[in-house]
Amino acid sequence: MTATPRLDPSLGSVELTRAICDIHSVSGEETALADAIEQVLRAAPHLEVTRDGDAIVARTNLGRARRAVIAGHIDTVPINDNLPTRLDDEGVLWGRGTVDMKGGCAVQLKLAVELTEPAVDVTWVWYDNEEVEATRNGLGRLARAHPELLEADFAVLGEPSNGEVEGGCNGTIRVELRFSGRRAHSARAWKGVNAIHAAAAALTILAEHEAEEVEVDGLVYRESLSAVGIRGGVAGNVIPDEAVVTVNYRFAPSRSGAEAEQLLRELFPGVELVVTDLSEGARPGLDAPLAQDFLRAVGGEARPKYGWTDVARFSALGIPAVNYGPGDPMLAHADDERVPVEQIERCEAGLRAWLTGEIRGN
Amino acid sequence: MTATPRLDPSLGSVELTRAICDIHSVSGEETALADAIEQVLRAAPHLEVTRDGDAIVARTNLGRARRAVIAGHIDTVPINDNLPTRLDDEGVLWGRGTVDMKGGCAVQLKLAVELTEPAVDVTWVWYDNEEVEATRNGLGRLARAHPELLEADFAVLGEPSNGEVEGGCNGTIRVELRFSGRRAHSARAWKGVNAIHAAAAALTILAEHEAEEVEVDGLVYRESLSAVGIRGGVAGNVIPDEAVVTVNYRFAPSRSGAEAEQLLRELFPGVELVVTDLSEGARPGLDAPLAQDFLRAVGGEARPKYGWTDVARFSALGIPAVNYGPGDPMLAHADDERVPVEQIERCEAGLRAWLTGEIRGN
Repeated sequence: MTATPRLDPSLGSVELTRAICDIHSVSGEETALADAIEQVLRAAPHLEVTRDGDAIVARTNLGRARRAVIAGHIDTVPINDNLPTRLDDEGVLWGRGTVDMKGGCAVQLKLAVELTEPAVDVTWVWYDNEEVEATRNGLGRLARAHPELLEADFAVLGEPSNGEVEGGCNGTIRVELRFSGRRAHSARAWKGVNAIHAAAAALTILAEHEAEEVEVDGLVYRESLSAVGIRGGVAGNVIPDEAVVTVNYRFAPSRSGAEAEQLLRELFPGVELVVTDLSEGARPGLDAPLAQDFLRAVGGEARPKYGWTDVARFSALGIPAVNYGPGDPMLAHADDERVPVEQIERCEAGLRAWLTGEIRGN
Repeated sequence: MTATPRLDPSLGSVELTRAICDIHSVSGEETALADAIEQVLRAAPHLEVTRDGDAIVARTNLGRARRAVIAGHIDTVPINDNLPTRLDDEGVLWGRGTVDMKGGCAVQLKLAVELTEPAVDVTWVWYDNEEVEATRNGLGRLARAHPELLEADFAVLGEPSNGEVEGGCNGTIRVELRFSGRRAHSARAWKGVNAIHAAAAALTILAEHEAEEVEVDGLVYRESLSAVGIRGGVAGNVIPDEAVVTVNYRFAPSRSGAEAEQLLRELFPGVELVVTDLSEGARPGLDAPLAQDFLRAVGGEARPKYGWTDVARFSALGIPAVNYGPGDPMLAHADDERVPVEQIERCEAGLRAWLTGEIRGN
């Protein structure tokens, strides 16, 4: 047994981010970090702490009229010679997790301890296994095992969004378009039916498709429709009897998954289409009163989120949710992952302003 | 050491076919069969026998004005519970090698021994390793090591052709069409360039292409142009930066390999095209005097051969060559490989008529 590493929430949020990054917490190996976070929270008498696996929930119970969830995942993708963290002369913090998403975790931890009387009740959540298959996701596990712990009027997920508010997220559906034919020797091609040739029309549809931009609750979501894989062929002298095109459609959150599937079926009439993966999107829900307060407090313009994030899990629970965290999402998982510390401090200030401000309706 | 199996050339050609089929001779394992054939030939004083590996050449030296090669390969593809041979009540001989091409081998062996004074000098050839990679091909090895042994005015290859004369063969070229793009996350497809989408136009060209029919020396060769493979894709959430379409073009023997390549380059302008495999075709050469005699003797109409065969090796040596053998080429390599014995007897009669007839110009 190694001793639980200690985290000091009185540190600045940048120093706390570094300390959290430097505790090994690749997906599935988050226990040491979860222990350290739990230890800090248990010392705060205003919080009711629940531990579930390597997820921790800490709730205020002030009897406020509204409750917000503020959540972040504590795992990272594997490190690649990019730890420990390093702070350069230009105020940029480098290393695995600096973007995705230890800055958000640190800001949460600092504010959870410091803000003993936030203007809304807060359910702080740190969870495990976000970077791996969905079945292991700690937030999903909490939602199944303890849905009452996640009840709220609004949720903020600290995923990297350059310190801007990114509302909701596109959904994603993956389908296989399957084409069949009849084998023959390629010296007598006319005796067979070429399944790869049969895929030509579908590829042309994909190549010529102009992805829509869809306005949802005031935000414009840009969709993407792409072939992400293709395979076919038996041997160099055989007319192939099968070809498969894998298509990924990222759809605006105004469409349900079923609608997205239907749209694909209409786009490829007569083609065998098999859904292999589907995650619903999440509407930004920025018309919720708490969302309006939040937006005013943190400032700036809300923008749409294109990538799928766990805000969709809140959406599925009926809770409007936004992404708001330091770091450029394009640098998530990159070996040169890095964040300007100014963004960490800005997010801390934004959340603090919101949680300490006078909240309408409270 | 097992004793050399014995073959009796006084048997009928059907019984001799069965005996040859029943000697194991999968490619690379032809020695026992080669030994048995050599033993029969060495006993015939009118033949000059040369052994090279598992290939045997037996030549008459009668001082005739013209010389013909009559050749066949003695190897088979692997057996699959389809030996020993079985003759059914309808006169069909079943089993590995019955089509490809032990019938031709048997007819050759019978006639080589019986026809002590053929009307043209004959170079009889049995060779190994036709069913495997070209570098192991026994006929190719003979052509490199003993080109003088193969000198002739005309060649007959006993490959299955339903007992009809099939002249020459199409050439075959295999190319990769390579498309490149730029990776991006599929949630932001507009930041990348999709290599699979880039392949759409080429697939459409392939799907819409109408293969030509080209008349060569009086025979009409039908070409084939086919995608035989396609691959692309990095991951289910990544815009792919590479896609490769493998194309096989079977081209009429009036075109050279270089012309076939040029034609493909013109069909796919601007596409990166890499030749991975090329075999020249063979003109039927039916205007050669010996070919005319042969056609008259065996009867029927000459037809074009679509599949590539070793006639192209003779063509490369400047020797007009035709395929003429029992068996349906569509059944070659099939588990239910089988030949009507009538075809074996017909081919024996055809060759016998030619080699014993009065040959013009002799």
